[in-house]
Amino acid sequence: MTDDDLPALTGPVEVVGAGLIGTSIALVCSRLGIEVVLRDTSEENLRTAHGLGAGRAAAPDDRPQLVVVAVPPASVGDAIVDALSRTGAVVTDVGSVKAAPFEEVAGRVGPDDLARYVGSHPMAGSERSGPLAASAALFDGRPWAVTPHPYARPDAVRLVEALVLECGAAPLVMEPAEHDRAVARISHLPHLAAVLVAGRLAAAPAEHLALSGQGVRDVTRVAASDPELWQQILEANSEAVLDLLAEVRADLDALMSAVASDSGPDLVEILTRGNAGTAAIPGKHGGPARPTRSVFVAVPDHPGELARLFGDAGEIGINIEDVHIDHDPGRPVGLTELVVERGSAEPLLAALESRGWTTHR
Amino acid sequence: MTDDDLPALTGPVEVVGAGLIGTSIALVCSRLGIEVVLRDTSEENLRTAHGLGAGRAAAPDDRPQLVVVAVPPASVGDAIVDALSRTGAVVTDVGSVKAAPFEEVAGRVGPDDLARYVGSHPMAGSERSGPLAASAALFDGRPWAVTPHPYARPDAVRLVEALVLECGAAPLVMEPAEHDRAVARISHLPHLAAVLVAGRLAAAPAEHLALSGQGVRDVTRVAASDPELWQQILEANSEAVLDLLAEVRADLDALMSAVASDSGPDLVEILTRGNAGTAAIPGKHGGPARPTRSVFVAVPDHPGELARLFGDAGEIGINIEDVHIDHDPGRPVGLTELVVERGSAEPLLAALESRGWTTHR
Repeated sequence: MTDDDLPALTGPVEVVGAGLIGTSIALVCSRLGIEVVLRDTSEENLRTAHGLGAGRAAAPDDRPQLVVVAVPPASVGDAIVDALSRTGAVVTDVGSVKAAPFEEVAGRVGPDDLARYVGSHPMAGSERSGPLAASAALFDGRPWAVTPHPYARPDAVRLVEALVLECGAAPLVMEPAEHDRAVARISHLPHLAAVLVAGRLAAAPAEHLALSGQGVRDVTRVAASDPELWQQILEANSEAVLDLLAEVRADLDALMSAVASDSGPDLVEILTRGNAGTAAIPGKHGGPARPTRSVFVAVPDHPGELARLFGDAGEIGINIEDVHIDHDPGRPVGLTELVVERGSAEPLLAALESRGWTTHR
Repeated sequence: MTDDDLPALTGPVEVVGAGLIGTSIALVCSRLGIEVVLRDTSEENLRTAHGLGAGRAAAPDDRPQLVVVAVPPASVGDAIVDALSRTGAVVTDVGSVKAAPFEEVAGRVGPDDLARYVGSHPMAGSERSGPLAASAALFDGRPWAVTPHPYARPDAVRLVEALVLECGAAPLVMEPAEHDRAVARISHLPHLAAVLVAGRLAAAPAEHLALSGQGVRDVTRVAASDPELWQQILEANSEAVLDLLAEVRADLDALMSAVASDSGPDLVEILTRGNAGTAAIPGKHGGPARPTRSVFVAVPDHPGELARLFGDAGEIGINIEDVHIDHDPGRPVGLTELVVERGSAEPLLAALESRGWTTHR
């Protein structure tokens, strides 16, 4: 379907739950000039979200076009049912699990109300939570699952898709149960693996932790997330999660016996399957991941220099895919990593060197 | 000890194995004006490393001050013994495992030769391999374990520390066996967890993979590494790795029963231990990790704009910790994420907005 088929998201949009996701959605809509009304059991969250320009507190006579339920998983069902009975609006939720809330709602509301409910799930977030971590850019270029049930009104589905597109995300329509199996694999399992690895660091000697490199930081980053939130997510999707954990347990046993028996070929096969898995993940924006190379440039640690570097890179006309600044307070010169398509690395290095930059190959 | 106590690294430095690590060390030394001679069984690696300016091929009458053995784990022992018998130089290796090579060398050379061997291990690398991935910046600010055995000559230990410092890394002196337990925990276990998660993606439906967010990318990134290399690393450190895998297996069983039994408190306890583990990892340069916040700026996707952004950020005089460019070929406007210390975010946003930039909070 093209954007033209979509009903206009004119608002008002009611956001229930002014946390990271809810406030981020509210910020997007407010910036688009759509009226946003906020509900949250926490007065502080409401004040913070309002202060960020996300919208105003909801009033009894508000007549929202769309209600977005962005509360913790354990409260999602109640909040959806409440929104359907309070308003005549299309209602979506942005919870991480989709089958359980649908079943709960289906058992508690009539068919006309149920038809106005369409679940969804933006694949965006942060290990931080709360409205202060919110950003209108949170969903930019991210996948956002839209999970209509068989009784959902087509215009309700399209209105939710319109919200997704306004947020700059890519809508992916799938069945609730299929969504839950998908997130168990690409979100809940990675999260739990990070938790298990991080758990082994908690009581580690400082001498061991001092050797930490980027690898362990990347693998464990998501394990810093809110435990109460994740407990609810995992219990709401326990069936799909347990199926996968059982598969991983079998893989772990195979791995342990391969290591224990010095069985090289078995171990290589397991490690090679890991290669295949990383290659299977699509590129950041759905496209294939492009091969890149890093160019390192020494940049004196005072403000004007970065501007000069990007000025030169701009004149060279090479597209910079990403940038990392290895900022070390202890040093006068910081190292800046410019990530470019593999073929552009040598020309960029040569051009920067000819302009007097110190590069590291 | 301070740098003053260290013997000067005057060279020549012989690098055995012109792969990612060996060529990177050679590049550092060459840039310092130290003569570097290279050995590799692969003529192509030698040509490539030479072409990058890493050094020249070794000649029979070279008299190196220091030999750096940077070959795959399975060949490390032979290469160290060969270097000790060929030369009178101090010999170090940069292999990922330290106890096994020492024991092998101790069993094959006399006490005088053994005294010239000091193992080491830079905590730097890449999921890519080979000389083309090499960079003189690879070790910048990274920990680098130096693992002297009881019979090592003190001046040999200090010469290896001098190399570490010349590479811009931070030397951490520890016993070989302790090092191996440390890397099992902060490197080999995270790697295997990434492999197990990635292994579950290999045969996943495309519809599932399309929902992939940053979390699964971070958790699985290291699983893209060379399987043959990792097979050798894991088998060389199998004892420490198996001990940890057994602990993780027990944790996994506890996790599965907590999820299966809907036992909220147990699950929260496991997830909270994950929080503690991520908090235990020291900051990038050994210091504590500082709280940061991201500021998102919309940047038109043509070269001059990034320069203008950094020019303005420079004038504002706020220190930018890191930068990410969410580069989307499909869009005229890219989103640039500026990571700054938490307190600097609001001032930066206000200043950028006053200069006409579109920001997202």
